[in-house]
Amino acid sequence: MTRKPIIGVIGGASPSEKGLVLAYDVGRLIAQNNAVLVCGGLGGVMASASQGCAEAGGEVLGILPGSSAESANPYVTLPIATNMGHARNVIIAHTADVLIAIEGGYGTVSEIAISLKLGKTVVQLNRDRIFSEAVMAVNSEQAVELALQSLEEE
Amino acid sequence: MTRKPIIGVIGGASPSEKGLVLAYDVGRLIAQNNAVLVCGGLGGVMASASQGCAEAGGEVLGILPGSSAESANPYVTLPIATNMGHARNVIIAHTADVLIAIEGGYGTVSEIAISLKLGKTVVQLNRDRIFSEAVMAVNSEQAVELALQSLEEE
Amino acid sequence: MTRKPIIGVIGGASPSEKGLVLAYDVGRLIAQNNAVLVCGGLGGVMASASQGCAEAGGEVLGILPGSSAESANPYVTLPIATNMGHARNVIIAHTADVLIAIEGGYGTVSEIAISLKLGKTVVQLNRDRIFSEAVMAVNSEQAVELALQSLEEE
Amino acid sequence: MTRKPIIGVIGGASPSEKGLVLAYDVGRLIAQNNAVLVCGGLGGVMASASQGCAEAGGEVLGILPGSSAESANPYVTLPIATNMGHARNVIIAHTADVLIAIEGGYGTVSEIAISLKLGKTVVQLNRDRIFSEAVMAVNSEQAVELALQSLEEE
Repeated sequence: MTRKPIIGVIGGASPSEKGLVLAYDVGRLIAQNNAVLVCGGLGGVMASASQGCAEAGGEVLGILPGSSAESANPYVTLPIATNMGHARNVIIAHTADVLIAIEGGYGTVSEIAISLKLGKTVVQLNRDRIFSEAVMAVNSEQAVELALQSLEEE
Repeated sequence: MTRKPIIGVIGGASPSEKGLVLAYDVGRLIAQNNAVLVCGGLGGVMASASQGCAEAGGEVLGILPGSSAESANPYVTLPIATNMGHARNVIIAHTADVLIAIEGGYGTVSEIAISLKLGKTVVQLNRDRIFSEAVMAVNSEQAVELALQSLEEE
Repeated sequence: MTRKPIIGVIGGASPSEKGLVLAYDVGRLIAQNNAVLVCGGLGGVMASASQGCAEAGGEVLGILPGSSAESANPYVTLPIATNMGHARNVIIAHTADVLIAIEGGYGTVSEIAISLKLGKTVVQLNRDRIFSEAVMAVNSEQAVELALQSLEEE
Repeated sequence: MTRKPIIGVIGGASPSEKGLVLAYDVGRLIAQNNAVLVCGGLGGVMASASQGCAEAGGEVLGILPGSSAESANPYVTLPIATNMGHARNVIIAHTADVLIAIEGGYGTVSEIAISLKLGKTVVQLNRDRIFSEAVMAVNSEQAVELALQSLEEE
């Protein structure tokens, strides 16, 4: 791949403290590995990963459910306003070369399922395994490493 | 509600024999209860439910992933061509007043999750419970009954 | 075509009095010709055409920009809630076998252009010709007649 | 605005030689003015503007109609795969802070109309005025200048 890899980070709007720290570190490691972060552009896991990535100098694509860039968290460097609500999740799944899921509720489960359906690798952090095909990671370093490895194999 | 209720039927493209029979009966019962069926308009559970509904005189809305009505199964009476791939699942979730899920893989799980996220009732048939909020039914009659009951409560 | 033809009616939310009457008659003629009406489901031309069609016993598909059926005008018999804003216009263009445009502003012009791009016939009523490929009609009867004729030719 | 402005470039897949040169220069000037380019990511005006922007070191967002980044022209640095066909035009209109249109057919006209409907400024190059609200420019420099000025006024 000559362009930078695009790594999706998905997860809930109301994560645990630990989830926020994991998300921040995942975002930072994405930037430090010269990859681009794509996420839903709002709060919780999305905002914390965006902050980690932006503060390490990386680009943050926020695929927003709303009609305007103003709804993006302040760490999104490239807001994509879809005005398509939850359907924007499918755009994230198509756009990400690989995804990392951190905690999350129905929205995240839906996103993981559609990503697996599209044949994407999904690395799961800080939650019991939901789907047998998901790849489990124990910390942020391993999650980003497994994500990048899955792209090398292609 | 003065208009007819719209009941979503979701499920995989490759169901078991039993799943096909359940889907047909669910479709038939939807028509016999004067409701409208909405589904993804393709094969498997979708086609079998469409057939049951159309053969009992009901209307079948097929929210198609492709760009043309020609991709619809022959029992869809009202094809909606979205040209939006899996994002059409989110339209089904918004459009259905209540949903019945029969078996299914990642696509169906994604659809159930997004429907629950939107606050819709989801009745599950012929599969282990996936989500604690899903309503379990043991046969087609009970599935349609529980679906219609959930609308009366509103 | 074994299913009923689906005729799109597009036009502005704030038409002239004449535009409202034309839209009502177009809707009525769609139902009387055993076709189905598809429109954006909201007010103005959309509501007036919906009323004409529903009062003549026809089905009215409303492809709504919002997330819920409650935003539909009261004559929509089959509300499709897309939650996709203006992108729902593209769904209308894909779904309609042929379209009739009555007056309208930027939204309608955008819809006509995308319909022509998709190779659909667009009949224009009560407005100067916008695109050379549009078919001009002088009254509701002629508009519906030209629309149905275009389908026979296929 | 603390983030970089996002300038949309829209136009046909089969522009004139002059259109291609104009598009290249518009892309280059977008990068040189520290803005980001957003376009549909395919050929013609899109590819030429992408090349101008990328070769001047700028970021190029390609909002693709297809399901995979592989369909992007080689100058897109950040491919967004929507799998939504022409509906991705509406995402471009929401995402761009201002748009520059170069020549183009029905697709471009549809895009201009929806952008004006959303209240965005549209600068037109190398084509007769289509809409009274469009801003006319005589060359690439003026087009980018007018686009950036429209953002300062906000």
